[in-house]
Amino acid sequence: MGPANHEEHDMSQAQHLRLGIIGAGIAANDLHVPAIEKLQDKIRISAVCNRSPEKARRLAARADRLYGQETPWFTDYTELLAREDVDAVAVLLPVDLNYRVTRSAVEAGKHVLVEKPLAANLEEGRKMLKLEEDHPELVMMVAENFRYRRVYREAAGMLKSGAIGEIQHIRWDFIMQMLPETNKYARTSWRTGHSFAGGFVTDGGVHVISAMRDLFGDLSISAAEVWSTNPEIGKMDALLAQFTSSGREGISPARGTLHINYSVNGLKGMRAVIMGTRGSMIIDDVDISILKNSESMPDESLSEHRHFPDDKGYRGEYEDFLSAISGTAAPVSSITQGYKDLETILGAIELAGGGS
Amino acid sequence: MGPANHEEHDMSQAQHLRLGIIGAGIAANDLHVPAIEKLQDKIRISAVCNRSPEKARRLAARADRLYGQETPWFTDYTELLAREDVDAVAVLLPVDLNYRVTRSAVEAGKHVLVEKPLAANLEEGRKMLKLEEDHPELVMMVAENFRYRRVYREAAGMLKSGAIGEIQHIRWDFIMQMLPETNKYARTSWRTGHSFAGGFVTDGGVHVISAMRDLFGDLSISAAEVWSTNPEIGKMDALLAQFTSSGREGISPARGTLHINYSVNGLKGMRAVIMGTRGSMIIDDVDISILKNSESMPDESLSEHRHFPDDKGYRGEYEDFLSAISGTAAPVSSITQGYKDLETILGAIELAGGGS
Repeated sequence: MGPANHEEHDMSQAQHLRLGIIGAGIAANDLHVPAIEKLQDKIRISAVCNRSPEKARRLAARADRLYGQETPWFTDYTELLAREDVDAVAVLLPVDLNYRVTRSAVEAGKHVLVEKPLAANLEEGRKMLKLEEDHPELVMMVAENFRYRRVYREAAGMLKSGAIGEIQHIRWDFIMQMLPETNKYARTSWRTGHSFAGGFVTDGGVHVISAMRDLFGDLSISAAEVWSTNPEIGKMDALLAQFTSSGREGISPARGTLHINYSVNGLKGMRAVIMGTRGSMIIDDVDISILKNSESMPDESLSEHRHFPDDKGYRGEYEDFLSAISGTAAPVSSITQGYKDLETILGAIELAGGGS
Repeated sequence: MGPANHEEHDMSQAQHLRLGIIGAGIAANDLHVPAIEKLQDKIRISAVCNRSPEKARRLAARADRLYGQETPWFTDYTELLAREDVDAVAVLLPVDLNYRVTRSAVEAGKHVLVEKPLAANLEEGRKMLKLEEDHPELVMMVAENFRYRRVYREAAGMLKSGAIGEIQHIRWDFIMQMLPETNKYARTSWRTGHSFAGGFVTDGGVHVISAMRDLFGDLSISAAEVWSTNPEIGKMDALLAQFTSSGREGISPARGTLHINYSVNGLKGMRAVIMGTRGSMIIDDVDISILKNSESMPDESLSEHRHFPDDKGYRGEYEDFLSAISGTAAPVSSITQGYKDLETILGAIELAGGGS
């Protein structure tokens, strides 16, 4: 990392990273602050901003209780960015604001962790890449928590060690029934109103794609369909795509199917079935099962289960942000990776004829 | 049914149907004769034919033991077809012989039950349709046993009754690892040598397609891929296709994925996952599960399992053949249905660029 902002806050001297949070909605309260709370010795919320003063005040009060001191709050993010006691910001806003606010933040000399999907469309995604290129002195990261989930790292290790032989087929499902009555994400108008390309399909899609790309390499989509069952939650609530993965070191290329569906009852969750020539792996949220036909009795399956609980990667994400700011290593969840995730899912939607 | 052959053997008078078996291989010994043995009061094997005298003799001896009388056997099927004491034949041969032998049989005035896939290619399939049209006095049936499996009939009833609401997505997998060392079908050279279009992919594919068409209506394939992992078992051992089903009375149209794979270890069998707006149905061989999210607790699944053991439909197939010959009703597994199954799977293979 470059010198400017960086040397002021040398992590190795156990100083806190002073973090400004822009956006005090669901992502801040439910996903980010719980991770930050666990890293109190390394990170402190030093300012909070939300367009609604009530939400800003509420999150600031939570920070006050955490650190036993008063946390300034703003309704205008440029005021937060102007503060000297903010080294870095978490941009946790409706996606269509990601580019504008990130640009202001880096121009103000702040490191940035910006929520996924990276940008509202590919054009703004490319502008994000340009910002990263133009500001090598700053750490810019996409808050793609799936990149830090233990379950996928363990799965990658098992696949590389040949646990299931050559990969024959990958089937990845992200299934749920998202109803406005019971799910608060289904009530956020910038999601249901498609203020970013693809709405929920992109919102969930970048998670799936990032996990798949980390495990299997880049994906080339050969066929795709999108459709809508419940118009209450947006212009599309399902995507079905066929792909070929490029493979990675120790992991063979393979064909696969990706299915994202927000209107299914009875099944739910993130589930991957990876079929191989010597066994099959099922990743069901935080559980990995390896199934093998017994060699002497090909009709009999032997099964091994392992459980890898994680916090969905949020803590690892902040640890990576901190270590990148310390100059230890480039972040795993770079803007480039976030752009490729977005490009893949939007490419599938466009191939399906559902592009905006 | 027409008068000619028919009145000679009026089933209502409890006479036996005198059945000639042409082809004394795996299908005859493992699949058909066990069903015929259970219908001894209605059906008798009256002659047997196989190119290899040894196999013909062996099956004739089995029939001898069954009925306590000597069963004539032949190595030339035209000799079997010339016999007066053969009312109907089961054509259980390598698929590329289906059309030629079926034509000879109907020209000899015999009812025909011919093994699936109906024909070696669509051109011969159309000739089969013509034979059916030209011989309304005879019953012609495809031995598609899946049409008679209890599990699919029960599933259809449950879907029609609204058990899972509107169908959102269908995922049908037929997965196994077929190794010549452990599976005798994998050693039949007319299958591995592709003496009929598609080899194993078609051989298994028509079963899947027939079950799907019975449940969901006709399938329109929008994208498909075929590939090969183990060249020992043929030019292709996997197919992946996306489709839209037309729907049936009480069953909504839906999108779906079909995956046939003969080179996967660890997972196996015929498994359908049918996702709906009010629940999901999993058909796992002879087990049907209905999963539902609880309405008050959307994160909790309620599950109901039912078990419908069957003999894979072989007995029902012969009962249908008998009742069609008695003139009770047209057979369920008609040549027309078998042709549509074949047309669907070969269409997918051709779309995938894997046509012969």
